[in-house]
Amino acid sequence: MTAYARLQDRFTRISTIGEASAVLGWDAAAMMPPGGGAARGDQLAVLAGLGHGLLTAPEAAADLAEAYAEGEWDGANLALMRHAHTRATALPADLVEAQARANSRCEKVWREARRTSDFAAVLPELQEVVRLVRHQADALAPALGLAPYDALMDGYQRGIAAADVAPVFAQYETFLRDALPRALERQARQPDPLPLHGQFPAEMQEGLCRRLSTLAGLDALHSRLDRSTHPFCGGTPTDVRITTRYDEADPAQALMGVMHETGHALYERGLPAAQARQPVGEAAGMAAHESQSLIVEMQACRSDAYLAWLGPELHRLFGGDAAPYAPANLSRLWRRVHRGLIRVDADEMTYPAHVILRFRLEQAMVSGDLLPADLPGAWNDGLHALLGVRPSGDAQGCLQDIHWYDGLFGYFPSYTLGAMAAAQLMSAARRDVPGLDDALKQGNLGPLVGWLRTHVHDQGSRFGFNDLLHAATGKPLDPTDFEAHLAARYLG
Amino acid sequence: MTAYARLQDRFTRISTIGEASAVLGWDAAAMMPPGGGAARGDQLAVLAGLGHGLLTAPEAAADLAEAYAEGEWDGANLALMRHAHTRATALPADLVEAQARANSRCEKVWREARRTSDFAAVLPELQEVVRLVRHQADALAPALGLAPYDALMDGYQRGIAAADVAPVFAQYETFLRDALPRALERQARQPDPLPLHGQFPAEMQEGLCRRLSTLAGLDALHSRLDRSTHPFCGGTPTDVRITTRYDEADPAQALMGVMHETGHALYERGLPAAQARQPVGEAAGMAAHESQSLIVEMQACRSDAYLAWLGPELHRLFGGDAAPYAPANLSRLWRRVHRGLIRVDADEMTYPAHVILRFRLEQAMVSGDLLPADLPGAWNDGLHALLGVRPSGDAQGCLQDIHWYDGLFGYFPSYTLGAMAAAQLMSAARRDVPGLDDALKQGNLGPLVGWLRTHVHDQGSRFGFNDLLHAATGKPLDPTDFEAHLAARYLG
Repeated sequence: MTAYARLQDRFTRISTIGEASAVLGWDAAAMMPPGGGAARGDQLAVLAGLGHGLLTAPEAAADLAEAYAEGEWDGANLALMRHAHTRATALPADLVEAQARANSRCEKVWREARRTSDFAAVLPELQEVVRLVRHQADALAPALGLAPYDALMDGYQRGIAAADVAPVFAQYETFLRDALPRALERQARQPDPLPLHGQFPAEMQEGLCRRLSTLAGLDALHSRLDRSTHPFCGGTPTDVRITTRYDEADPAQALMGVMHETGHALYERGLPAAQARQPVGEAAGMAAHESQSLIVEMQACRSDAYLAWLGPELHRLFGGDAAPYAPANLSRLWRRVHRGLIRVDADEMTYPAHVILRFRLEQAMVSGDLLPADLPGAWNDGLHALLGVRPSGDAQGCLQDIHWYDGLFGYFPSYTLGAMAAAQLMSAARRDVPGLDDALKQGNLGPLVGWLRTHVHDQGSRFGFNDLLHAATGKPLDPTDFEAHLAARYLG
Repeated sequence: MTAYARLQDRFTRISTIGEASAVLGWDAAAMMPPGGGAARGDQLAVLAGLGHGLLTAPEAAADLAEAYAEGEWDGANLALMRHAHTRATALPADLVEAQARANSRCEKVWREARRTSDFAAVLPELQEVVRLVRHQADALAPALGLAPYDALMDGYQRGIAAADVAPVFAQYETFLRDALPRALERQARQPDPLPLHGQFPAEMQEGLCRRLSTLAGLDALHSRLDRSTHPFCGGTPTDVRITTRYDEADPAQALMGVMHETGHALYERGLPAAQARQPVGEAAGMAAHESQSLIVEMQACRSDAYLAWLGPELHRLFGGDAAPYAPANLSRLWRRVHRGLIRVDADEMTYPAHVILRFRLEQAMVSGDLLPADLPGAWNDGLHALLGVRPSGDAQGCLQDIHWYDGLFGYFPSYTLGAMAAAQLMSAARRDVPGLDDALKQGNLGPLVGWLRTHVHDQGSRFGFNDLLHAATGKPLDPTDFEAHLAARYLG
């Protein structure tokens, strides 16, 4: 048995343990009675420890030093094995433990601080989290040959650096300065959207979500749809678990939420089976994953073509007055631009501004240029410069997101990289697949998903983010397609 | 850190991995889409391998050799650790692998052989399974200091040997020879039971099952009730998962099935929290577990007292003609004795005959006195001698149960040991708790379950089967209480 074959076995075991954890994580959110929470935490911790042990074992290091792999897939796979091993061994055990403790404590304090809009209450914990994150970045950077912030970003999305992202975001900022007032002005000239009136029983919404998800290509033989407080897509490539929640006064959230998660699920389902449980067989990263959820939700399901089909379908199902279900009304209702304070409530045009703000602030905190104590002021000024609004309190400002308070730095850019990549991929798919929009007019995502299978899903982790985009669309990340999409949709 | 403390850590990890497997097993039966089956098998195999690795590691052997534990609980715990390690290391790895392969193949062939009632088709596979089981018994016996068949039985229930069971079963055979004809005669003199007529929607049955289970003491904070093809009780002590299936033409199966599983669930919930995840904190074995399901289902919920409460409750819920819900009718309907061929359809009086037959035949196969080729004849003659009926084909005879074809030898006695222990415990509980039957008349199992918590659940695995009974009832296993229970219920 060669060193590489031994490593394939090892990574198969690591991945299989990860699958078990994924199902247990889904269960904790969707099924577990509350009394099972403490034991579940232990179960996940033991499995994580076993996986980590397999990844960092001396035998793994010896095999990685000796291994040789031929061919494109195996070569990429071995490189990813080395990458994973490097990331896992670069951090001293006492730093990992200190971070786990500090993040857990900070996150607890943050929940209360956000409730009372009291940044000072969580500042000492955040200072400790940032101090340790800076140690983490400094330890990862030389091991990976990356700048400190890039080493953090690499943990969520390989293959793109802050130096690639910064000009893209700067270009978008310029676009937005012109586009946002125009979009708002145009919106103001249009009639106010009619809200959907009536009762939308959860059971009926669930049946509809199942049907739309199936029509989009997700097969019930390998997936489930359940309920949880925070919607997500979990499970494993042959057993994908989507969750959502239902508002019986408004079906939009569940409907679009399930289509978003369906995009994630289709990616997992479409990963190359021949590389299953190997690093190269995994999804290419968080930004790549977000591109797949957003291409289904934002590019396909909120398009005029799809809404032209969906509106009458909804009206047939829920009855009542037909006017709110007119596609033109749905597009005004479900595609509303606004200068808001809250990222998760943002529309697709202003959402990147929220991310750009966080991207800049977290880089400054990691470099030491911004002290956590100065975060509220920097946040409020930064948001005002980007969107022209200013939070009246930190609960609506720098306390709104959990990420930093849980030690996640370098994650935020993925949201907007995903949104931009979704537009870029959609543009390439439209070029390659002539009948794509005609199919959307019949609620059929088949042609789009077929193209994504070939150009994204089936590529696994062969490429980093920019190389994946290049292979699929002929160019690295380029905000132009996203801007063109927004211009067509919002500037008329 | 002492060797014993290290072992406690090790067994906590082993148990925590087992918890993860238990939840994944429940998910596979109750939730998993069919396409997830192959990956789930891999996940469970990897977790089992990790647990086995921790149990058989050289460090475990070294710590067991060195460890010393003071006090009753820790002393028992250390002994159980040694016992588990001995069982896990007594078998050569190639035998374990050969058994896994042979059992899996035999079980597959058996499914088809049972369908076509063709014993010859599965005989070669059964011969191989038996050959390997005899090797297994021979390898375990000297390591455990037990006779070969006892070493197999010990894998399911510690603390009772075939030499203890045989006279108990012989006494029951004598009892049955007299009691069965009398019970049938008495039954024939009574009016035929009226069947429950109507529609019993699964949702309504489910709500009722939840209510009865809660009234019996199972809390929703730490449990779930779901559906699966084969009802069972799984999960973990702080997160128990019960499943059942619903027949919309007859609520009896789900109702009594859920109360049976509730008995199992209450046992898991009541295990000593201070010993959680240690061997001594586990349930005392399969027979002990079955005693807890049967004391709830057979002793409590099929009692005249409970039926006097349940009948009107059911009528209030489902409506229709009142006569079938009269407690006297329910007792005739749900407590019918018959000379049948099939174990799982047997009533509580004839069920032990099915077990006695299997207990004798499997001992003879393990000793070599009975060749698998001679099983059908021995089965048919044996059943006829015990119950006076003879299968017309092997599907109704020696092919009916999966156990042997899946390599399970030594398991069958647990069913009847559990039934007898349930009667013995009920008799002791009635003696100790004066208001027990009055509470049952109000659907309240509280006094019974309270007594079981103290005398059974909270004892964990401190005692083997006979010692547990002795501590709880003042005597080892004694079929007299079970016979008295049957005489009171069926001989009038």
